[in-house]
Amino acid sequence: MSETLENGRRLSEELNPGMEATLEERYGHLVPGMAEAVVDFAYGRQYAREGLPLRDRYIATIAALTALGGHTAPQLKVNIAGGRKAGLSQQEIAETIWQMALYGGLPAAINGLNAALEVFSEEDGLA
Amino acid sequence: MSETLENGRRLSEELNPGMEATLEERYGHLVPGMAEAVVDFAYGRQYAREGLPLRDRYIATIAALTALGGHTAPQLKVNIAGGRKAGLSQQEIAETIWQMALYGGLPAAINGLNAALEVFSEEDGLA
Amino acid sequence: MSETLENGRRLSEELNPGMEATLEERYGHLVPGMAEAVVDFAYGRQYAREGLPLRDRYIATIAALTALGGHTAPQLKVNIAGGRKAGLSQQEIAETIWQMALYGGLPAAINGLNAALEVFSEEDGLA
Amino acid sequence: MSETLENGRRLSEELNPGMEATLEERYGHLVPGMAEAVVDFAYGRQYAREGLPLRDRYIATIAALTALGGHTAPQLKVNIAGGRKAGLSQQEIAETIWQMALYGGLPAAINGLNAALEVFSEEDGLA
Amino acid sequence: MSETLENGRRLSEELNPGMEATLEERYGHLVPGMAEAVVDFAYGRQYAREGLPLRDRYIATIAALTALGGHTAPQLKVNIAGGRKAGLSQQEIAETIWQMALYGGLPAAINGLNAALEVFSEEDGLA
Amino acid sequence: MSETLENGRRLSEELNPGMEATLEERYGHLVPGMAEAVVDFAYGRQYAREGLPLRDRYIATIAALTALGGHTAPQLKVNIAGGRKAGLSQQEIAETIWQMALYGGLPAAINGLNAALEVFSEEDGLA
Repeated sequence: MSETLENGRRLSEELNPGMEATLEERYGHLVPGMAEAVVDFAYGRQYAREGLPLRDRYIATIAALTALGGHTAPQLKVNIAGGRKAGLSQQEIAETIWQMALYGGLPAAINGLNAALEVFSEEDGLA
Repeated sequence: MSETLENGRRLSEELNPGMEATLEERYGHLVPGMAEAVVDFAYGRQYAREGLPLRDRYIATIAALTALGGHTAPQLKVNIAGGRKAGLSQQEIAETIWQMALYGGLPAAINGLNAALEVFSEEDGLA
Repeated sequence: MSETLENGRRLSEELNPGMEATLEERYGHLVPGMAEAVVDFAYGRQYAREGLPLRDRYIATIAALTALGGHTAPQLKVNIAGGRKAGLSQQEIAETIWQMALYGGLPAAINGLNAALEVFSEEDGLA
Repeated sequence: MSETLENGRRLSEELNPGMEATLEERYGHLVPGMAEAVVDFAYGRQYAREGLPLRDRYIATIAALTALGGHTAPQLKVNIAGGRKAGLSQQEIAETIWQMALYGGLPAAINGLNAALEVFSEEDGLA
Repeated sequence: MSETLENGRRLSEELNPGMEATLEERYGHLVPGMAEAVVDFAYGRQYAREGLPLRDRYIATIAALTALGGHTAPQLKVNIAGGRKAGLSQQEIAETIWQMALYGGLPAAINGLNAALEVFSEEDGLA
Repeated sequence: MSETLENGRRLSEELNPGMEATLEERYGHLVPGMAEAVVDFAYGRQYAREGLPLRDRYIATIAALTALGGHTAPQLKVNIAGGRKAGLSQQEIAETIWQMALYGGLPAAINGLNAALEVFSEEDGLA
């Protein structure tokens, strides 16, 4: 197994336990190798990189998905949850999202806050 | 003067000296009050907020502008320069941009790196 | 209170009664000051401006939200309703949306017409 | 009747039987002539053109709708079904969509695969 | 010749004299019939429609192209010039564009104002 | 070396000789491993996949980059040239691009045709 795949697997399991297996089960019959490609590229060759702490990487991701618009709401919610695990406070996440009013417009920022509220209320429900 | 405008002016002058005057001169005859609106909303009501350090706010902005695509290249370069002033290293900025390959696609990430290279070589030329 | 905030409040209450309170209640604990920022920037510093009648501002907004795509559907519906209050006929709104086939593509235009149909049938139901 | 409209009608009825009537019924009171415009422009002046087989046109459409993001999911599903009629295999469609990870980002590609899975399971259910 | 094509030609010649011939010359060898399709669909089946005055249609177009971002700058400039012919003042156009800060973000609005400034200074130079 | 990287290198050298070295030279000091990541993910794990011929993959890519808009013009031109090597005729490419008027709007389609014209005239100049 290549080093990037190994690193990607370790990090992916830490952040989203079971994700590779879920992708494989859901999409593997249609797109063989897709789950491994996600783990290798997104986790092994991106999130596992040095030079920017994981917490900061989640700021970047949450900002981008908010600005790109609400059609990425499922992924935005996954990454808000991931950002919490990586050490971001609810406030830091909300600030990141609200700032996107400047770049993606008000509707995108408000849709992003709605996604955050959903994640945070699940969190609090589990607490 | 309202508090948000006052705070916005202080921060805007610190980060982009002369920006309000430049906006006023360039756009004020067409859109009166536009320069003040930018200072109040973008700086006073967004960047000057508590809850997320300025350095982190620039990570969010650089990520979003990269993912939204190269048509924001002028603003991306301004914000890369702003991020440097707010304490981001060249490496942290490059990592933020490259990670956007996952969300805005490879062309957007590569266009973003090109913008960063331009800013960094101006920086190094001035050193 | 600054003049833009005062003007924004007056116009926001006229167009969307209770909106500021709703934003404050929903998002205020996460992003303090966000409701006021929306009222000041969107209403006081944009919609309340001179130089373009409110009716025309809604044409612009409905066009943009349609072209940007269906992920802004909640906001598109709010603004279609707002445009009706500002004097746009159902036909004028439908024409604005359909024209977006040229700029945002056919799917965006059709999604926009669907949003309009929802608003108009609520209207007719209330008549 | 113009030649493009005639060709458009023939092709549209072949690919999506009843579509023009459905559009007319749903939108015709609001936007008279819209159904005919779709048939003439989209089918008569685009899909019916020579120079690129219909199968290849569906690859292009599926790729674009995937990359543009999930807000076009209804239209993406219609075109995935259309692509199947035009001779694309499930695998070819899935490959087209997954490749969009490179251009529209991972979330867009995964949203696209979800749309395909829905269409394919309806297909298999009907078989 | 169909009615929509006839109407489209009349309006297109009025608003952009010579446009169909220019499109034909530039793109006709690659995409036969493309110029006619633009005239029929964009002018005959959209801009020539009743129900919304031409001046208002340009507000919609300028708003959408601004919000979609600067990559449409050439077309934005053409439509700003078209809007002037259809009776929009420089101020009305600038207000339309600046309002897009709310929906397409600040960079898009500022890029739009830059396009307007270019068109307006050409205008004034010709006066 | 992993199999995907090996396959990616072979295909990348065939389609864009020297690309990995160019990426490494231009971006490697800022983002170590980025060139290899592009080769592995874009070529080894995407373009080299079975299930869709390379020619069809270029239709998908050209369609997506056109619909996403002109800010991807440099990459659109690279992929138009790549599509030619993979067996697409000039006409097939032009048809793919023009069809995007339906999904990305007229300006995006026209910007795409302009990119194609540039590539084709370089081609003809070299002939």
